[in-house]
Amino acid sequence: MSLPRAVKIVEVGPRDGLQNEKQQVPAAVKIELVDRLSAAGFRNVESASFVSPKWVPQMADAAEVMAGIARRPGTIYSVLTPNLKGFEGALAAQADEVVIFGAASEAFSQRNINCSIAESVARFEPVARAAKDNGLRLRGSISCALGCPYQGDVPVPAVVDVVQRFAELGCDEIDIADTIGVGTPKRTHEVFAAVTKVFPRERLSGHFHDTYGQALANIYASLLEGIEIFHASVAGLGGCPYAKGATGNVATEDVLYLMNGLGIETGVDLDQVVDIGHFISSAIGRPNASRAGRALLAKRNAAQCSEASEQA
Amino acid sequence: MSLPRAVKIVEVGPRDGLQNEKQQVPAAVKIELVDRLSAAGFRNVESASFVSPKWVPQMADAAEVMAGIARRPGTIYSVLTPNLKGFEGALAAQADEVVIFGAASEAFSQRNINCSIAESVARFEPVARAAKDNGLRLRGSISCALGCPYQGDVPVPAVVDVVQRFAELGCDEIDIADTIGVGTPKRTHEVFAAVTKVFPRERLSGHFHDTYGQALANIYASLLEGIEIFHASVAGLGGCPYAKGATGNVATEDVLYLMNGLGIETGVDLDQVVDIGHFISSAIGRPNASRAGRALLAKRNAAQCSEASEQA
Repeated sequence: MSLPRAVKIVEVGPRDGLQNEKQQVPAAVKIELVDRLSAAGFRNVESASFVSPKWVPQMADAAEVMAGIARRPGTIYSVLTPNLKGFEGALAAQADEVVIFGAASEAFSQRNINCSIAESVARFEPVARAAKDNGLRLRGSISCALGCPYQGDVPVPAVVDVVQRFAELGCDEIDIADTIGVGTPKRTHEVFAAVTKVFPRERLSGHFHDTYGQALANIYASLLEGIEIFHASVAGLGGCPYAKGATGNVATEDVLYLMNGLGIETGVDLDQVVDIGHFISSAIGRPNASRAGRALLAKRNAAQCSEASEQA
Repeated sequence: MSLPRAVKIVEVGPRDGLQNEKQQVPAAVKIELVDRLSAAGFRNVESASFVSPKWVPQMADAAEVMAGIARRPGTIYSVLTPNLKGFEGALAAQADEVVIFGAASEAFSQRNINCSIAESVARFEPVARAAKDNGLRLRGSISCALGCPYQGDVPVPAVVDVVQRFAELGCDEIDIADTIGVGTPKRTHEVFAAVTKVFPRERLSGHFHDTYGQALANIYASLLEGIEIFHASVAGLGGCPYAKGATGNVATEDVLYLMNGLGIETGVDLDQVVDIGHFISSAIGRPNASRAGRALLAKRNAAQCSEASEQA
């Protein structure tokens, strides 16, 4: 068993998570969330999305959030930029990294943005060039890499193809995202075995959803492939837009618990993240979707009760 | 990557699950549960517990349940037997397998049954002898094999020691149980690597709890060790007695989804199990704790809605 010595956990709760929650979250809460996450040790926080407020009202305050956070030296604050207008917002907001995206599923691409995968990636050329010209990091995120809500199976070569297109645009990092959480370790293994042949292993990340409970098994399978970057969302923020009541993004607390148990360094303090998960779940009035988070909070409460009864 | 071609899933919901739910479940519901599970393809269903109704009122109707179920040829109906009196009940009820148990944690054994591990296993000698004399299968279940709520770490040699004691009692199958769900794949790997040296791999099972979200990752790690028997509880019945609000037994639906994705045969029909999970969750008025179950139910509902709107 050979596992990486250390991994980078990209915390995506403030962007990917909150963008998929129904509630409108005040900018002040988002700012506190980002700041507490960076203080807990995350070196990379996906913080906002510079998208049209008409389509994504949840992210309308992106500039305010980016202006309000306390930058920690060395922390990468990433933002989503669907087009050049979004990039200009990101640049003005002094984002460290811009994220562009495309699906590995032709059906998903057609249905969601009404164009082919190839066209959708090509449209990001101006954003990619602008990022390079301005010295910003560029990340490419590939959705539906392990399966699609419309076409079902997504062939591995289709994923490899998008990785190559993003590589040609100059992406520093590329995400393999199981957007609907249908993947299992076998497919995870197959995809990473294929994409690591065309892009450096240490710049590929795994973005897993826990919709079918498979996320941690997939992360473990990815670790066995030498993958060193994983996305996670504190308290499992985000839910699943394709199945009401289903689980979405893998919870950061569960991922950190796994890494701690495997002796893999993350640089992040799990106890602080459990607090943050409790804070944001309470702030937006939703159940905490992290199993490890709930168990650790229950354990703390039990310890406090027993302490109180011993004192009584 | 070398995985088993097929595995046996032991469905423990009717016993381990319902014993740890607060509600008193009518015998008729338990009987329907067991019968639907055997019809879905489970070859081994943990069905009841012949324990003192004073301590475990949830299982007071064990004889009634065992008398009421429709036996499927080839299906093993297991029951828990803490002592000779329990064994006599199990024998009269025509159970196929009796289950004895012990902890790998000295602190847990002292605190729960007020004796050492060695003493607790020795006390099962008469039950083990009676099982052999009567041609019943004998299973030994080792709790706290990956960690203990009282002493924390449980050394691997302590697990090996209990495996050897159960082997000496003539156990046909031995369960490695992560009772509080604290294990991760590293410890899972270490424990199975050690116990497979003293007991046949094909007669060892993994019993994982999802309290910290690690169950499927641990099952995947066990598969990589060649383990071929896993316990699971439909809809995640059972909860966690050591942490209120935390998750307990791994949900059968999630395990079946994993096995299907890995191409590992189980002989069990996932769709039927999703229905059973919905049935028992509704019957006892609790949320369905299976992520795959919830996702597949949501998907079905969405398909029905879209069909209805197309017809309209």
